[in-house]
Order: sequence, then structure tokens, then C-alpha cells
Amino acid sequence: MTPGDNFYDELLSLRRRAALLSSCGAVLNWDRETYMPEGGGAHRAEQLSLLAGVSHEWSTLPRIGELLYLLQDHGPSNADSVDVAANIREIGRTYRRATCLPRRLVEELARVTALAQHHWSEARASKSFSAFEPWLSQIISLKREEAAAVGFSDEGEPYDALLDEYEPGACSSEVAIVFEHLRQELVPLLNAIRGSRRVPDKSILHRYYPVEAQKKLAHQAAKLIGFDFHCGRMDITTHPFCSGFGPGDCRLTTRYDPQFFSSAFFGTLHEAGHGMYEQGLPAQAFGTPLGSAVSLGIHESQSRLWENLIGRSAAFWKYFYPETQKMFPDALGGVHPHQFLAAINTAGASFIRVEADEVTYNLHIMLRFELERDLITGRLQAADVPDAWNERFVRDFGILPENHAVGCLQDIHWSAGLMGYFPTYALGNMYAAQLFEAANVQLGNLNELSEKGDFRPLLEWLRIQVHQHGQRYTASDLIQRVSGKPLSDEPLVRHLRLRFSELYEI
Amino acid sequence: MTPGDNFYDELLSLRRRAALLSSCGAVLNWDRETYMPEGGGAHRAEQLSLLAGVSHEWSTLPRIGELLYLLQDHGPSNADSVDVAANIREIGRTYRRATCLPRRLVEELARVTALAQHHWSEARASKSFSAFEPWLSQIISLKREEAAAVGFSDEGEPYDALLDEYEPGACSSEVAIVFEHLRQELVPLLNAIRGSRRVPDKSILHRYYPVEAQKKLAHQAAKLIGFDFHCGRMDITTHPFCSGFGPGDCRLTTRYDPQFFSSAFFGTLHEAGHGMYEQGLPAQAFGTPLGSAVSLGIHESQSRLWENLIGRSAAFWKYFYPETQKMFPDALGGVHPHQFLAAINTAGASFIRVEADEVTYNLHIMLRFELERDLITGRLQAADVPDAWNERFVRDFGILPENHAVGCLQDIHWSAGLMGYFPTYALGNMYAAQLFEAANVQLGNLNELSEKGDFRPLLEWLRIQVHQHGQRYTASDLIQRVSGKPLSDEPLVRHLRLRFSELYEI
Repeated sequence: MTPGDNFYDELLSLRRRAALLSSCGAVLNWDRETYMPEGGGAHRAEQLSLLAGVSHEWSTLPRIGELLYLLQDHGPSNADSVDVAANIREIGRTYRRATCLPRRLVEELARVTALAQHHWSEARASKSFSAFEPWLSQIISLKREEAAAVGFSDEGEPYDALLDEYEPGACSSEVAIVFEHLRQELVPLLNAIRGSRRVPDKSILHRYYPVEAQKKLAHQAAKLIGFDFHCGRMDITTHPFCSGFGPGDCRLTTRYDPQFFSSAFFGTLHEAGHGMYEQGLPAQAFGTPLGSAVSLGIHESQSRLWENLIGRSAAFWKYFYPETQKMFPDALGGVHPHQFLAAINTAGASFIRVEADEVTYNLHIMLRFELERDLITGRLQAADVPDAWNERFVRDFGILPENHAVGCLQDIHWSAGLMGYFPTYALGNMYAAQLFEAANVQLGNLNELSEKGDFRPLLEWLRIQVHQHGQRYTASDLIQRVSGKPLSDEPLVRHLRLRFSELYEI
Repeated sequence: MTPGDNFYDELLSLRRRAALLSSCGAVLNWDRETYMPEGGGAHRAEQLSLLAGVSHEWSTLPRIGELLYLLQDHGPSNADSVDVAANIREIGRTYRRATCLPRRLVEELARVTALAQHHWSEARASKSFSAFEPWLSQIISLKREEAAAVGFSDEGEPYDALLDEYEPGACSSEVAIVFEHLRQELVPLLNAIRGSRRVPDKSILHRYYPVEAQKKLAHQAAKLIGFDFHCGRMDITTHPFCSGFGPGDCRLTTRYDPQFFSSAFFGTLHEAGHGMYEQGLPAQAFGTPLGSAVSLGIHESQSRLWENLIGRSAAFWKYFYPETQKMFPDALGGVHPHQFLAAINTAGASFIRVEADEVTYNLHIMLRFELERDLITGRLQAADVPDAWNERFVRDFGILPENHAVGCLQDIHWSAGLMGYFPTYALGNMYAAQLFEAANVQLGNLNELSEKGDFRPLLEWLRIQVHQHGQRYTASDLIQRVSGKPLSDEPLVRHLRLRFSELYEI
């Protein structure tokens, strides 16, 4: 053992310990959303605040900085290995970010966002923006402060500092260019769809789908695509999510609406996609960068790949529709597979992001990205949000939100201080299509496998190409390695054109 | 504020912080028993070990010792109050105990017992002791180490050090004397019961009781006696327990056997009794001695009081039997209330402690107490357990366990490192009868209230006499204050004689 080896081991073990403590918080968060009795809220907030505080303390220990510094001169014996370099690079990155934030700002953000979420939820219920405005205003100024504290490059802008938390290495101006390029493709496609004479019958998805049967089908589908229930489970929450507690334990949640088929089914495929990524991370590297997800964009690529690329494909339903029809004889007994496929792929302008189709979904994201950038640079203030939202919504979708609850108040993100998060959803869609194209090339025709209900080869491929690496590569390096090309909107556009031109005969 | 006030406040806040962290561990423990997927066991053990380690660190901060020392000369302004004295006394007691334990031992115990419980459960399922033996052996040697580290009086024995954790102030030789006295009373009573010509028809409890109806009835009964489901919930586990996470959140668990009425029903009353104690502790004192239960013996008195003194009484069933009969028309339609009452109070030798009647239950405890003492002093080793168990079981009950699953593998306690815990169950039975006698004197005839299904006065009385005090008084002081007498087996013996002489006409 060289001194460098000792430094490196100590660094990893400090990181692991902080991650282990965070993972305890994940269990408490999950329980709060699933099983906690109503009376437990106040005490749970105390518990979570304690864990968050200690976790932050452990992530910003001066000893970590010292070890990172010492390792610059005294690297470990295998300093040349990609793994060691990746661990040091990523630990350094998160440490720098965490230590830039004054504790007062971290605490203030935690306090304000905890309260703001409650006010947001009330404002949304009463469809009134004004009750939320002072909170949004406070959050924006705190996030501006955060951006200034974290810093950004000379050519960059404050929003970069926020984006970087969720999508390390991404920068606003480049994202804007990719998004603009994607928009140029989506708008004509959407217009063509609007002009089509084929109008899917969406109402078949709003028949009566008994919850017990939905549960059974959702579990069956998650298992079919490869989610391992030996190392995970699925419960019910108001807002679906996936939480990986650590090796061997990943929790999915979903919600069941007896009058809507898609919500639970595609929500489950989506969360299972996230869950399979978590389950594919190398267990022995838990708590270190090599055992952690690359970025939210890459995480989202896994959920969207299974939800959309697989889950809304003709091939998948060729295999899975008979099963589904059998499960819901009343609702689907007389529904032809093509009708069903058309219904689950209905595209068109709608108010709500989480219910949007594959074509318009990205436009919803771009609108939020634009607004967030303007809010953080100061070109817009909180009070301007409702008008700015509606104006841009009409510009992009041709319809005016009926009220703020289905407009600028629809998402929880801003009230939770999650600014810079939205773009990762659209990046995820692009990564997903690009990965899927590469998988198709390398594995042969995936449709044939889907038609047989055989998703093992695709999952194995994702395990090898993406999951097992953890943060060995950055998102941009990873996509280059796997697909041979940098991130591009072209695979997504190709996919959407192909899928929707068939469905809508355009 | 005097310096003493500052010392006192700091002491309480350090204690509160450690308790808050422990309460996070309680959530993780509960989840492990209820919903954790099988694959999550290893990671959960790591999480629990970390929390136990940090919790231990925080409970043994030198600053706590320093504050306790400083408070000896500089007490807070209200140093004369019973509350302040109790807080300082109890913090001092647990601090002394905790600082005796090396951190390595604490973490090792947490890690080993987390894994051992899994192996115990498998060993029990396969009725094979050998798979559990190495784990038990490890645990015994860790507990011997713990006893040596904590220490015990010159006239005492290592087991005292373990017993003291659960029943502060109790000592093995005194417990042995009380137990022996009780045994002298129980054995003739049991013989008289055996000689009775009245033989209850236990088989009616083993008819088919649909689980859904059992669930409904169990919830109804828990609510009836006063468990607050707004601040708690009930789930299913192999081994029923109650865990108070903190103010507003208390979890009960139970298990349902469709072929046995008593298991879930009386188990629920039992755990709800524990739960109501937790719910009655003063919320504002959470984490400090005044917000904590006195001892496990007192805790158990609350569960046994509701399970047995109330739950198996003629008066309770006068009110509750019609409801129960309606819930199980097939099983109980033709069963007369007296038959039912006799069946749920059937006394006689049986293998399983948790299903034992009120008379033999204490004999089950005495056997475990004997064994544990021998294991901790070294008179017995892990490998000797099956033979020692069976031998003593035949001696006390006249029957030989059919296999180890209904013998020495039946209880989870040893696998969880809970040695010194069993005696508190029998102490709890004695406390329960003594409290119940006092309540009867002070509230008038409790049977009349039970017959009307009105359990509020009794719960209120327990809240005022026991719950609200937390650790204001020690167990022996508390029982003296409430009943005017020191702990005695006489109320229990009186209760058992009265109940069983009526039922068995002896």
C-alpha cells in the first residue's frame, strides 16, 4: 500500500458512509409516501431533516477536500485506471459543489421549499397563482444565489450551475440548440398528425378497468421486461416514483385510476425502467461514483426506453395485447389490437405534461426550460410567470390553458426547488432513442424479440452498455461510446416519424 | 439562564438528537419485517449497523459525561423538580451503560443480529437447529462480552448486566426468587385445572376464520380499546411487534391464521396495549427520559392488561361476542358465549409461548430465563440448547416438543440479540394484575364498563397513572405509587385463581 492507496481508500469509505446514511433517508421518504399514518408527518420531517443535515455534513468534511488534494500528488498505485480516475473525478465534482454552498443557503432552501410545496399544492387546488407567487419569488432568488455560489464558466450563464446538478457537464446554450433543432422537426410532424383523417378513439382507455386486474397486469408487465421483484417491490402513491435504497432493494410506486388504463400501466413501465437501471448498478460499488447513476438524463433514458420505445410499440402489444384483453374482457373484449395501439399513441396538444404523448412531450419541456432560464438570469420575475406561460403555450400548442392548475401550476418541481431538472426529461427521450437505435443495430431486429415477449437480450445489452458502468463515463462519453456518435435528436426524430406516420397514415 | 440551565438544555438536546436518529432505525427495522424485498437484507444490515454505530457514538459523546458532571455542582434553577431529577438520573444511567460498550461491539451486534434473524427464520422453517447454531453461538459470545463490558455487582452475575437494559434495577437472583414463588402457586393451580371435569372445546377456535374478516375484527377491537389509527397502523409480520417511531407514529403488526382465531385477535389486543402506551407518552418530551417508557416490564404490563385482564374476561366478551359471532357465522354461529369464553381460556401444557394460556405462560418464561442465565454464565453453550430446552420442557410441562420449530427455535429474541428480555414478560404479567387491581379499586367495577364496551375510563386512568409520566419514576417507585405496594405476584395469583376456578369449577 502506497500513501496514495490509503488516501484513495479513505476517500471511498467516507463517500460510502455518506451514501449509506442517505439511503436510510430514502427508506423514510418512501415510507412517508406509502404507509406512514397521517399523524406521523411532523416527526418524520424532524427525522428527515436530521438525516439530511448529517448527510450534508459528511459530504462536506474538510478531510474529503484534503484527501482529494493529497491524491493530486500521491495517486493510488492504479491511478491510471479508468475506474480510479472516474471515482476521483466525480467525488471531486460533487464535493466542490457541496462545499460552495453556504450552510445557511442549504438550510434556507430546505425550509422554504418544504413550506412552498404545501402552498403550491393549495394554490393549484384553488387554481390561483397569487398565493404561490411570493414563494416562487423566494425560491427563484435562492436558486439565483445557489447558481452564483456554485459558479459557471465565463461564456456560460447562471442556469448552467443549476443544470449541472442534474446533468453534469451539460450547458444551457448547447441544450438550447439541441432543443431548437428538435422543435423544428416536431412542429411539422405535429401539424401533419393534426391534418390526418385518422382519429384514434381515446375513449376506450377511459372505460372501467378494475384496480385489482390493473395491479396484476402492471406487475406482470414489470416482471416481463425484467424488473426483479426479489430485489424490489411496487406500492401505491399519489405521485409515482422509483427509489433505489441500495443493492437488492429498489422500490417502485404507481397509482391506479379505475377509469384510465394508461396511468398505472405506462407509469409502471416507466418506473420499472428506472428500477432496472438501479438494479443494474454494480452492487459492490454502492455509494461510490462507480455504483451511481450517470445523470438524470441517462436515468430518464432507461425509463422512457421501456415506457415508450418498447411499451408503446406495435411489437410489444402483438405479444402483450391478448393477455391484456383477457384481463379486461368488459373494457377491451371488442377492441381490435390496432384500435388499442392507436389509442395509447394518440398525439395532439394537451395541457398536462405527464399525460402528453411522445411528440408533444418534448415541447412541454422546452417551454419550461425557456422559462426557467429567463427566471434565473432575471429576464423574468415570478409575477411574470402566468402570462409568460400562457403566451408561450399558445405559441407552441395553439391552445390557452383553461386555468393555472393545468398551466403554470401543474408541476411540483419549482416549489421543491428543482430548477434545471426539467431539461433532463427531454434529454432522456433523446438518449433513449439513440440507445435504442444502437441496440437495434447491435442486437438485430428488436421488434422480433418484442413480438415474442423476449426482453432479456435488450436488458442484458443495457446492463453491459450502460448500467454496469455507473459513473465510469460521463453522459456524453457514454452515449458516444455506445452509439459511436454524440448526443443527437435525430434518432428520436426518426423514431417518432416512423411510429406516427404509420399510426396516422401521414 | 444560569450556567446550570444551559448545561441541562444542552444535555437534553444531545439526548433528543440521539433518540431521533434511533427512531430512524426503528423505521428501517419495521420495514425489514413488513415490506422489504428478500434481496434487501444485506444492505439493510449495513444501514442498521451504521445507524446503530452513530447512535451509539452520539449517546456516548464525552460532552454528555462532562455535562452530567458539571450538573452535579451547577444544577439548573429548577433542580429540585422531580422532572429534572428524573431526566438527569436516567440520562446518567443510560450514558454509563452506553459508554461501557465499545463501538466495535455495538456495530458487530447490529450486523450479526440483522443477519442472524434471517438464518433463524430459515432454520425455524426447516425445523433444523444446526443452521442457526453458529449464529446463536456468535450472539451468545457477543452478549457475554456485552455483560462483561457493562459489569455487575459483586454479589451479582453477568446476566444482571443484560437484564438491567430492559428492566432497570432488576437483578437475576431477586427475579429468580419472585419467579420461584409464583411457580409454587401456578403448579397446584395447573394441577387442579388438569383434574377438572370441565374440558373446554378448543377446536371451535380452529375452525375456518377467513382472514379478511379477522382483519376487520382485529382493527375494530384495537380501535375499541383506544388505539389511535390516525397516529398508527397495523401490518402483517411473522413475529408480531409494536414499534413507536415517535410522536404521532406507532406501528403494530400481527399475523393471521385462517385456522385459528386467537393468534391474530389476542395478538392485536396485546400489541395495541403496547401501542397505547407509546401513544400516551408525552409528545413534547420525545427523546428525553420523560418521554420514554419506564421499562419493558411496565411496557408489557400494558399489553397484557388489555390482552388478558380485559381481552379474555367474561365482561369483555359479553359486549364483543355478538359482533364476533356475526363476523364468523360459519365458525361461531352455533357456539354459546360460555363455550367461546371457555375455549379462549383453555389452560394446559402447550409448546408455543405466544399461544400459551395465562397460567402456563409464566412457566414458559421461567424456562427461558433459566436457559439464558446458563448460556450467559457459560454453564451452557449454543450447541446444548436443543437438549437443554427439551429436557426442561418435559420437566415443566410433561410433554416433549415435536420439533425445534415448536421448541427452542420458536422465538425470534435470541437471533435479535435480545437476551435478558424474556423475564420482563412475566414481570409484565405481575405489574398488569397489580395495576388492574388498583384501577378496579379506584374506578369502581371495571367489569361493568367492559360489559358496555366503554374502555375510555380505564385508558384515561392508565394515561394519568402510567403513560404520561414517562420515566419520571422507576418501575418499582411507579408500582408503589399507583398501587400503594411494592411489586408482588399476589394480584396475579388472585386473578388467575378467580378466573380459572370459575371457568374450570375448581
